Amino acid sequence: MLERVPKTKFGMAVQTTEGQSFLAGDALEPFSIQSISKVYTLTLALKSEGEALWKRVGREPSGTAFNSLVQLEYENGTPRNPFINAGAIVIADIVRSNASDCRNALLEFVRARSDNPSVDHDPEVAQSERRTGYRNVALANFIKSFGNLDNYVDEVLDFYFYQCSLSMSCLDLARSFSFLANGGQCPWTGERVLSVSQAKRINAVMLTCGTYDAVGDFAFRVGMPGKSGVGGGIVALIPGRLSVAVWSPGLNPKGNSLAGTLALELFTTKTGVSIF
Amino acid sequence: MLERVPKTKFGMAVQTTEGQSFLAGDALEPFSIQSISKVYTLTLALKSEGEALWKRVGREPSGTAFNSLVQLEYENGTPRNPFINAGAIVIADIVRSNASDCRNALLEFVRARSDNPSVDHDPEVAQSERRTGYRNVALANFIKSFGNLDNYVDEVLDFYFYQCSLSMSCLDLARSFSFLANGGQCPWTGERVLSVSQAKRINAVMLTCGTYDAVGDFAFRVGMPGKSGVGGGIVALIPGRLSVAVWSPGLNPKGNSLAGTLALELFTTKTGVSIF
Amino acid sequence: MLERVPKTKFGMAVQTTEGQSFLAGDALEPFSIQSISKVYTLTLALKSEGEALWKRVGREPSGTAFNSLVQLEYENGTPRNPFINAGAIVIADIVRSNASDCRNALLEFVRARSDNPSVDHDPEVAQSERRTGYRNVALANFIKSFGNLDNYVDEVLDFYFYQCSLSMSCLDLARSFSFLANGGQCPWTGERVLSVSQAKRINAVMLTCGTYDAVGDFAFRVGMPGKSGVGGGIVALIPGRLSVAVWSPGLNPKGNSLAGTLALELFTTKTGVSIF
Amino acid sequence: MLERVPKTKFGMAVQTTEGQSFLAGDALEPFSIQSISKVYTLTLALKSEGEALWKRVGREPSGTAFNSLVQLEYENGTPRNPFINAGAIVIADIVRSNASDCRNALLEFVRARSDNPSVDHDPEVAQSERRTGYRNVALANFIKSFGNLDNYVDEVLDFYFYQCSLSMSCLDLARSFSFLANGGQCPWTGERVLSVSQAKRINAVMLTCGTYDAVGDFAFRVGMPGKSGVGGGIVALIPGRLSVAVWSPGLNPKGNSLAGTLALELFTTKTGVSIF
Repeated sequence: MLERVPKTKFGMAVQTTEGQSFLAGDALEPFSIQSISKVYTLTLALKSEGEALWKRVGREPSGTAFNSLVQLEYENGTPRNPFINAGAIVIADIVRSNASDCRNALLEFVRARSDNPSVDHDPEVAQSERRTGYRNVALANFIKSFGNLDNYVDEVLDFYFYQCSLSMSCLDLARSFSFLANGGQCPWTGERVLSVSQAKRINAVMLTCGTYDAVGDFAFRVGMPGKSGVGGGIVALIPGRLSVAVWSPGLNPKGNSLAGTLALELFTTKTGVSIF
Repeated sequence: MLERVPKTKFGMAVQTTEGQSFLAGDALEPFSIQSISKVYTLTLALKSEGEALWKRVGREPSGTAFNSLVQLEYENGTPRNPFINAGAIVIADIVRSNASDCRNALLEFVRARSDNPSVDHDPEVAQSERRTGYRNVALANFIKSFGNLDNYVDEVLDFYFYQCSLSMSCLDLARSFSFLANGGQCPWTGERVLSVSQAKRINAVMLTCGTYDAVGDFAFRVGMPGKSGVGGGIVALIPGRLSVAVWSPGLNPKGNSLAGTLALELFTTKTGVSIF
Repeated sequence: MLERVPKTKFGMAVQTTEGQSFLAGDALEPFSIQSISKVYTLTLALKSEGEALWKRVGREPSGTAFNSLVQLEYENGTPRNPFINAGAIVIADIVRSNASDCRNALLEFVRARSDNPSVDHDPEVAQSERRTGYRNVALANFIKSFGNLDNYVDEVLDFYFYQCSLSMSCLDLARSFSFLANGGQCPWTGERVLSVSQAKRINAVMLTCGTYDAVGDFAFRVGMPGKSGVGGGIVALIPGRLSVAVWSPGLNPKGNSLAGTLALELFTTKTGVSIF
Repeated sequence: MLERVPKTKFGMAVQTTEGQSFLAGDALEPFSIQSISKVYTLTLALKSEGEALWKRVGREPSGTAFNSLVQLEYENGTPRNPFINAGAIVIADIVRSNASDCRNALLEFVRARSDNPSVDHDPEVAQSERRTGYRNVALANFIKSFGNLDNYVDEVLDFYFYQCSLSMSCLDLARSFSFLANGGQCPWTGERVLSVSQAKRINAVMLTCGTYDAVGDFAFRVGMPGKSGVGGGIVALIPGRLSVAVWSPGLNPKGNSLAGTLALELFTTKTGVSIF
């Protein structure tokens, strides 16, 4: 499915915590957010489960590919962090255990955070992943064999494939990360989504684990906490100032958007913003 | 299921290539043969596919646990050998592709080889494995993700769980390995099951890969090619002379029958038989 | 040697980029800085070699222990980052190739950066490491076997053990990191040590790789780029504001100062400073 | 050094336990035996230390390259078997601890076993290995860091490089393995070198660990216990019948002699001898 999207697409959106938006290129065109959804489910899991979730998933960079089973075996079924696939599957299990209708809970959350009630998932993408996602089925069954999933494997995977198939634009994404750039509080509704400390911590996990096994390079070149997806999207932020989303479907060998990473590098170089 | 079998059970059967049988203890009581079935499916796959099967599975000891996914990841979905679970799943896929009714083909083969038409599988065991075998489901999906399974994952696993649930006695097992002790030819029917060279090669693979990651210790202490199963059975053989099966459900940390290994060690020490 | 230092020692020093110093406890007592020296040698190597050094050492978190040889083998002798021992040995090789007297070049640099001409190395510590550092000798020879050391192994190790044996106080350390907290420029001399961009990048590498395989936890709890040593010291910083050094010899299982990490966590919680 | 030997060299020698010798090609030309020497030192260590040596080195195939450090790290400095470099270094340490002059003890043993008092080592080869063997220096220091070497690293390596530099012909080698083909007893002197059981066990370890990570393939194709060296030599045997040595310097990707392996495969196919 993803490979059908033209590689020439490029969009970018900046959302300041003071309410301004800046758009460029295909910033309003929805695309498959894929792994970026892991930030939303981690937020939901933190809200319902609190710090106890760190007993079931770590918060260290993996040093290996996003879909590796190696580390999981050496570390007895505890994924290294919530942003590799294995960790996100455990987080999906937690969200599922805590919501009577987890798909709907996620959708409502994302619509509220992006201030866009028309955000939805793409059933064709979900279907395609379910058909071909053998590696993720392997991961989920492997985790289950270690006793680190409470729900049925199929139910967890159903929700996991659903979250990956959410379709959003750069503007939606930049807005939806505003609460993380704003100390846990939604800038326009004033709603407290997470505590100040929790928001900082998600930002820290994004910086050390958010861009697969290229986190060092991303921190080095871009200098912002961020989360990428294989659909070509990346969202990043400067605490207290802004969130920024880019989209370009061509990926580099590490699975991050090639043009997107370059655009963010240029953005921080030109504006001088950086957390470092 | 397997844990319900009393740990005090012990049986042993020797079958010479000249037709004599010797029995001790519970030698006639059927038990779950589990991984010993991998020798039968490898034989069937060799008959139908020939040496081409070695393109899809290696023949080197794994150096890791029987159900490890680590090596599979480092070696891109090619299992190290046909006697670790991953390799047996690929072999099951090959057998399934070559037989219109693979369950029946296997059952007929085993009944003929053991000269016992009442050998059958235990549906309760198969059912139990299907319900709890998350690790094997993970392995099969992982292999599929590398493109090394032709059939649907569920179909391959159905056959794999079936083969593991075959129920046989020590005498059945010792007899069924007679063709491997006799240069590929069934001693009592004269049927050529495999060529001389193929039989030698299966014996070689048993010696280097047949007892999980304890092959070195087994060769060192017992000195015969053999194949073990987590049901507590072990079958071994001296080419040109005899095959021997032992059964005792208590396992050592490597997953081989504790008393069974000791019995075989005593057998080779007392009789002086050894391939070394 | 290190184990002789009383575990009850505790010191802390804060140095703002505007020139203020704050001291607590044993902040003026020198101790063995060990791996903190890797930041100095990386700075020297960047000054002389520029970005070309990244061809010989990566900048990704390792996901494994600081003295692991595993990754080095899988990645053919290219260390993951300059702050694991393997990477620091390659950096030591670079510094040695670029300075006629590398020990002196390092000592002068550290004295200038800490504004303390009496900083020196502890020959007893260097001697002790040379006698017992088998793991580091193994690492250096392993890297040499891949062709990633230009100088003789013994010469590189001599310099490496020397840098680890530097003896400095919390105040020395906090001051010596001021240029990294101040965009690459020494606040009191005005000397430009590194470009703005290079300083940011060293900070980024500290955040993702500076505290062994606890970088995720350190970012999560402390929220500052930092570098630790097995002597019990940690130096961290908030860009544009301050650098802070703590010292307490008792280590946690990951090799970072236990009380030091807690002190830094408390410091950022109480003051509200954080890069996130 | 080794690369100077013409790739066109080929020699073969068969020595029966009844005293006959058969020679072909360059069977009388000495060459560097390299890792084949590990069988001699294992024999010496077994004679002096007995079964206690298995506390310091395993007897399982490694599943990895002969000079890998990975397994050693995961298994805390206990080498998998005595025929990988790490294991042979531990064995060298044991021999050194048990002989006042270990070089001479080895040389006398090899001269007696091969019935050739002119066998000697090649000082140029030893010198060359000492100069370039960084990987082995890394291995030895790594093992020392785990406390699994009693002597100084340099002394152990000196003996290790010495044993690898022994220079012998195919006939020397075939004769020197006669005691292993003959139940531990030298056929022509009647001297009991090892017990029957010990000889069988060394044969078993050769079969499962003797040809690097190609043991499965070697057993599969050749069907004899054997030991290879990177100098292009391989010695193998059929218990109770014969020992055979081949030499051809061109190696396959696993580090075993290419033509030598083919020659042994042809030898067992044509003669029908095989332990399987």
